[in-house]
Amino acid sequence: MSQWVYRFGGEVREGHAGLRHLLGGKGANLAEMAAIGLPVPPGFTITTEVCRYFYAHERRYPPGLEQEVARALAWLEGLRGQGFGDPERPLLVSVRSGAPISMPGMMDTILNLGLNHETVEGLARVSGDRRFAFDSYRRLVQMYGEVVLGIEARLFEEELAELVAHEGVRRETELSPAALERLVERYLALVEERSQTPFPRDVRQQLWGAIGAVFGSWMNPRAVTYRRLHRIPEDMGTAVTVQSMVFGNLGEDCATGVAFTRDPATGRRVFYGEYLVNAQGEDVVAGIRTPKPLTRAMAEANGAAGSSLEERMPEVFRELERVFATLERHYRDMQDIEFTVEKGRLYVLQTRSGKRTAQAALKIAVDMVEEGLIGREEALLRVDPAALEQLLHPTLDPKAERKVLARGLPASPGAASGRVVFDADEAERRALAGEAVILVRIETSPEDIHGMHAARGILTSRGGMTSHAAVVARGMGKPCVCGASNLLIDYEQRQFTVDGTVVRRGDVITIDGSSGQVMLGEVPTIEPKLSGEFATLMAWADAVRRLKVRTNAETPKDAQTAVRFGAEGIGLCRTEHMFFQDDRIVAMREMILAQDSEGRRRALAKILPMQRGDFVALFRIMGARPVTIRLLDPPLHEFLPFDEEELEAVAAAGGFAVAALKRRLAELKEANPMLGLRGCRLGIVYPEIYEMQARAIFEAALEVARTDGVEVVPEIMIPLVATARELELLRDRVARVAKAVAAEQGRAPRYLLGTMIELPRAALRAEAIARHAEFFSFGTNDLTQMTLGISRDDAVKFLEAYQRAGVFPTDPFQSLDVDGVGELVRMAVERGRRARADLKLGICGEHGGDPDSIAFCEALGLDYVSCSPYRVPIARLAAAQAVLRRDPKWTQSSGSSNS
Amino acid sequence: MSQWVYRFGGEVREGHAGLRHLLGGKGANLAEMAAIGLPVPPGFTITTEVCRYFYAHERRYPPGLEQEVARALAWLEGLRGQGFGDPERPLLVSVRSGAPISMPGMMDTILNLGLNHETVEGLARVSGDRRFAFDSYRRLVQMYGEVVLGIEARLFEEELAELVAHEGVRRETELSPAALERLVERYLALVEERSQTPFPRDVRQQLWGAIGAVFGSWMNPRAVTYRRLHRIPEDMGTAVTVQSMVFGNLGEDCATGVAFTRDPATGRRVFYGEYLVNAQGEDVVAGIRTPKPLTRAMAEANGAAGSSLEERMPEVFRELERVFATLERHYRDMQDIEFTVEKGRLYVLQTRSGKRTAQAALKIAVDMVEEGLIGREEALLRVDPAALEQLLHPTLDPKAERKVLARGLPASPGAASGRVVFDADEAERRALAGEAVILVRIETSPEDIHGMHAARGILTSRGGMTSHAAVVARGMGKPCVCGASNLLIDYEQRQFTVDGTVVRRGDVITIDGSSGQVMLGEVPTIEPKLSGEFATLMAWADAVRRLKVRTNAETPKDAQTAVRFGAEGIGLCRTEHMFFQDDRIVAMREMILAQDSEGRRRALAKILPMQRGDFVALFRIMGARPVTIRLLDPPLHEFLPFDEEELEAVAAAGGFAVAALKRRLAELKEANPMLGLRGCRLGIVYPEIYEMQARAIFEAALEVARTDGVEVVPEIMIPLVATARELELLRDRVARVAKAVAAEQGRAPRYLLGTMIELPRAALRAEAIARHAEFFSFGTNDLTQMTLGISRDDAVKFLEAYQRAGVFPTDPFQSLDVDGVGELVRMAVERGRRARADLKLGICGEHGGDPDSIAFCEALGLDYVSCSPYRVPIARLAAAQAVLRRDPKWTQSSGSSNS
Repeated sequence: MSQWVYRFGGEVREGHAGLRHLLGGKGANLAEMAAIGLPVPPGFTITTEVCRYFYAHERRYPPGLEQEVARALAWLEGLRGQGFGDPERPLLVSVRSGAPISMPGMMDTILNLGLNHETVEGLARVSGDRRFAFDSYRRLVQMYGEVVLGIEARLFEEELAELVAHEGVRRETELSPAALERLVERYLALVEERSQTPFPRDVRQQLWGAIGAVFGSWMNPRAVTYRRLHRIPEDMGTAVTVQSMVFGNLGEDCATGVAFTRDPATGRRVFYGEYLVNAQGEDVVAGIRTPKPLTRAMAEANGAAGSSLEERMPEVFRELERVFATLERHYRDMQDIEFTVEKGRLYVLQTRSGKRTAQAALKIAVDMVEEGLIGREEALLRVDPAALEQLLHPTLDPKAERKVLARGLPASPGAASGRVVFDADEAERRALAGEAVILVRIETSPEDIHGMHAARGILTSRGGMTSHAAVVARGMGKPCVCGASNLLIDYEQRQFTVDGTVVRRGDVITIDGSSGQVMLGEVPTIEPKLSGEFATLMAWADAVRRLKVRTNAETPKDAQTAVRFGAEGIGLCRTEHMFFQDDRIVAMREMILAQDSEGRRRALAKILPMQRGDFVALFRIMGARPVTIRLLDPPLHEFLPFDEEELEAVAAAGGFAVAALKRRLAELKEANPMLGLRGCRLGIVYPEIYEMQARAIFEAALEVARTDGVEVVPEIMIPLVATARELELLRDRVARVAKAVAAEQGRAPRYLLGTMIELPRAALRAEAIARHAEFFSFGTNDLTQMTLGISRDDAVKFLEAYQRAGVFPTDPFQSLDVDGVGELVRMAVERGRRARADLKLGICGEHGGDPDSIAFCEALGLDYVSCSPYRVPIARLAAAQAVLRRDPKWTQSSGSSNS
Repeated sequence: MSQWVYRFGGEVREGHAGLRHLLGGKGANLAEMAAIGLPVPPGFTITTEVCRYFYAHERRYPPGLEQEVARALAWLEGLRGQGFGDPERPLLVSVRSGAPISMPGMMDTILNLGLNHETVEGLARVSGDRRFAFDSYRRLVQMYGEVVLGIEARLFEEELAELVAHEGVRRETELSPAALERLVERYLALVEERSQTPFPRDVRQQLWGAIGAVFGSWMNPRAVTYRRLHRIPEDMGTAVTVQSMVFGNLGEDCATGVAFTRDPATGRRVFYGEYLVNAQGEDVVAGIRTPKPLTRAMAEANGAAGSSLEERMPEVFRELERVFATLERHYRDMQDIEFTVEKGRLYVLQTRSGKRTAQAALKIAVDMVEEGLIGREEALLRVDPAALEQLLHPTLDPKAERKVLARGLPASPGAASGRVVFDADEAERRALAGEAVILVRIETSPEDIHGMHAARGILTSRGGMTSHAAVVARGMGKPCVCGASNLLIDYEQRQFTVDGTVVRRGDVITIDGSSGQVMLGEVPTIEPKLSGEFATLMAWADAVRRLKVRTNAETPKDAQTAVRFGAEGIGLCRTEHMFFQDDRIVAMREMILAQDSEGRRRALAKILPMQRGDFVALFRIMGARPVTIRLLDPPLHEFLPFDEEELEAVAAAGGFAVAALKRRLAELKEANPMLGLRGCRLGIVYPEIYEMQARAIFEAALEVARTDGVEVVPEIMIPLVATARELELLRDRVARVAKAVAAEQGRAPRYLLGTMIELPRAALRAEAIARHAEFFSFGTNDLTQMTLGISRDDAVKFLEAYQRAGVFPTDPFQSLDVDGVGELVRMAVERGRRARADLKLGICGEHGGDPDSIAFCEALGLDYVSCSPYRVPIARLAAAQAVLRRDPKWTQSSGSSNS
């Protein structure tokens, strides 16, 4: 027969931290603390098995439970020297939920069980505080009424408000004991009237009512939704902990507080916390009274010498120090503790791993290795890779005042201030003149790249986390706020309006790409300093990880940044970004407007030396590291102007006829550009383009080999392949260019040729495609778009509704949809390797910088991930964690093991 | 050891028609004819195995081949009483290619081998025709020079032209024997000069040169491309047939001709053919002399009594009749024959199944069943389903004169004439006034539906075979020419220009949707008459097929047409088409412009009774047949006007503010509408829409049950589902509406709920999705777009280049891409059935009417296909063929078994 109830406290050792699945996080930690001799108010936990039984048997309890609870209660009475329902020395208990995985605030809790008309008098006598006793009682009646009997909170609040008014006091804390007594009567009447049944005077009935309600709350709609969103299985169940109450509000020798074993902001090894004398737990949180610092040092630093717990209750403080030391040694992590002092006696109510900033997480993890508390592997698992990004970008000074104008999506972290401009050219002009500017656009396109480079930050009113603006900004490591839909941008007037405020060109704003906030004026920022711990942890990560980490970069600046952050190559160099610079865009447009192949070749010949120069610069920075170059991908109309005004300017600049430009634009217009004439389709329809690019790559590689003595082996990547035949055609064409260059230079360029897998068909046909490819790079941005039939740019209109409805647990453009897109990736890996065992495999979509997606890449055995420069450190750490988590020893470990 | 050479003729029986894989189509049929005693010029065939050996061994022949050829040649000499290279009685042979699958014109042929300076004199003597002898010789030298030695044809033609000029005659046929002799000398000199080697006088060297060249032609670029396009395996190889020459040009007792055993235009059982006295085979084809009719009846009908072969050479004609009868009995199909009469003696040179019109195919197949020649199954396999469409639509009178203005894609068959209009509203107005109009648009959108309905035909300058215009026109059974890109359409001037010709609004044009031609003025058309054979064959098809055939229809007219053509239900009713009619579009726009759910509900309440009426009408027509209704699918902006002018008109008509309309339009604008807020996403973001539609369906079903006593069980289909959760949410919502209607009416509507599988993710996740779906309908149009990443509307820009380059064997929007999209369909079938064994499965993309795709659906075990009304008969026949072809007995059979 199962054991349904586990006791903790006194000499009993029935549970421990390892029984989380059975006792829930809270119950397991209480048992653990009790077991290692920490002062925990005793109690017992009813297991999650009871919860499962409860739901499998129409909300009935397993046979024997009642007896086990009765026995545990009797034991508790003995231990406390009190009696449950005893009018002389009443035992009060709390009943709390506690699931194996934390579901904060989703389920119910009831305190002060055990009070009725008789025991409340006993409590008043024992505590010597009648007010306290009746306040506790009225809280019980309200909580029980709400949680067990389903009476609306509002009704209780109305009664209370009425009484407060009637008594002529300002707030409930000023009510007299007699008034509270009357309030209890009113509450009891309310309960009876609403639930057609009186509040149970029988304390055992109270207890079982509370236990039933807490188990019942496992299936409340909130909890059900939360579980779906967090993929928590329904049959995990919750445990219920029944614990004897202790009170920090029984006089000046009582207190309550919260504490961290280290500073959660900096990670420094100092105690950190606050407390209040003669108060209840919720008073610390509620902010009615200002809590005092825990330590003398903190008190002195705050100019409040003498107010600390260390000074006021030195005995208790020393006891607390022992508790801290014990807990850290025991849990081997920084702990977040709630404690209560009842009449000079310390009780620990809860412990859990403390939340911390990225900086603190890093320092604590590295420090604890040095202290011998944990090993390097565990340290690596303690830091959330995504949080590292905070450390790399400038951030707003948290102390500065902010006037928030609007909110958008936090698309690319970091903060920036500058003058508003609405035009990429103007951004560039002003930046050259030394001004800081923020580029504000409805949305951006590749034509805005130079303006984005020039700007300090980018703000758009349309587009999601993976819109053009967001992706490019992240790539550049530039702050970006996207989809701030309240912004009404008027290009003609060169201003935007938001809730009546008009912001004109030249006005200064600040954007915070980490929070999505847009602020008027300049808000001071602080520059990041990378600590020694950062370098230490990265070195440990590099020693562990198997996946290589490359970067998506095409400018020398991005490439340099990425190398500085530890990138081991370029996984995606988007050559089209090289075509937008002033000197090239004219030739590019000439190419697009050309009537025939001959005309296109003439125009491309002008671009060739510039493109070759681009590659020479990149190869020099990357040295022997691999560089994957994607040939031209976007549809040609992206290189042409959009509106009438611009069109005339472009015609004038390039010497084109406006009519010809218009006609070509109309010809190139597409209903769905994402699914149009782009990628390798361009390479097949206009062979000259890829030929020029291949030539530029080969000539650059040979030049760098000659001048720098580095043998560069570029990886040429053909985008948007759907069929083996496309790749075969283009592979042959590239090979002909290589042959021609070899003949001219007397030295054959070495290179690899491969393809992006970014169409579902390519994944399905990977075996045939791999016969012509030396590498695959998963372009999971497009693969996600096609597989889900969702355009990144348009998704913002419904993705939020979708996440709310539980359709997507996370944004599939941020974290790979493992069930759908992931299956295609898995298939492509298997099939590709079937045709070519040594096929090189990488990922270059946005997902390459997402820790969950990196874990998936590790599981599939890819060779590398590639991500934007600022995500390289994240990827290095995530790749290490992915290796560690494949070891069952570490599977359960995680950086946020809260109860 | 293999047998490399198979002889035919005389008493020898070495090959037969079943050895097509070894002897090629030509060789196998010659062997077969010889074997059944038909007068075939004797010869021998070198097998395809030799070809395979040839390519596996660096173009060397297998040991023993030379001896086998020598023996076969000796046998041939004996049989003919001639000698190869014998100056007295020279044997001449032809060397021809013949692959197991016909590759017409792809490989080479050489005639008259065996001539040199000595034998040509013999031939002159034996034939008594020196001119003939030297003409034959000069043809040999030219053919050998071109084919074996690779000399350009142009050089021979220049020599010939020079000589003709020099001799002072008008054409080569007037050259004297002596001049021809000089021509031979000039050709021989040319060959020696160009190839650095003299033309071989040794006839055995000639023979081996010719054999090598014909095997070599298997790998010429033309043939390689042809095989890739037709998916013919490279290692199939070609056979080479060496056959003794016979001549129809040795005098008035000689002739040559072609004949069909039945009339290939009508299918009537009459001999049909033409011949020329004293002529060579190519003369009949070349058209220099006008051939005479074969039979007396034909001659009399043509007013040329006395000219027929039947009259001129009665003996030969009777022999030919016997040949016809033997061949039809033997091959059990209408035959297309080439024959030659040499000095009163008949030779059959070739036989193959004759090409025929759809009408003839139908009649011949049904007649042959009645004649006991073939069974019903074989009759079903003899008719090409796609060709049936010719019979269903009006066609241009083939005798009428046509002035072709432009050409586009043959998007929807049939022909129509009418006045040019550029606007859907005008089309409707004029049609109501009784005018025939052709709607001419750059491209069409759902807003043009009423104009398309009103027009006789549709012409667009943009868009492919599966553009909106094409799909809708096919659904309506209306002629349509799409993507006529030469048309420059000017909406403002209300005219289009094509190659300088201006066609104005009101001018009459004719379009032929079967050929893609656009003609000025009215070209007379003929209405189709469905023959009794049509009904007979359809009944046989229905008895055989397993797949049900439904139709895609939403208007009563389409539904009625489809039922008349045998549709067994509606597989796709696109409800959005119901929203564009005048009375609804205003309410629809009101709904789109509404600020909140309440406003949307008010507008939808106006649409509800109309939509209910639509369904009542459909249910009445369909009776107990199943009807699948797809809830709203397109993005909402499709219901709003596009341009400024229209926008103002719409605002005025609906009483909307222009600014509000503009703002909403800007909000709804999408970069890639195909991947945007549409399908079930609309249903989730704006729940009111689907609720109204579900209500209209339920209320209509109950109404028809009440009034007509037919229990309608509508199938409600949720479009664009990517995740199980979407379907779960919407299934629950539809169920709530059903419950509400049941409560109101006291009777619960019965219905099925299912989804379209049109996103790759849906196919991958079919198991989870099927838990909420009673049926799947494969929306292979969108599934193809997503899987290949190709927008149907934009594909026209590169699909042709792609087909030319051999990337796609056929347009993947017409015939399902079995390797890519097909794998997803297969997966979805397997996974869906895993979750729900009785899942109903159908297909409703354009592919539902494509025979190859239907065969794939049969192989997967789908329950039904659904196609446009005019394709229903095609689908019925194709479904029957698909069943038959799964039986190995019929696998090899096909309607076009050419040699």
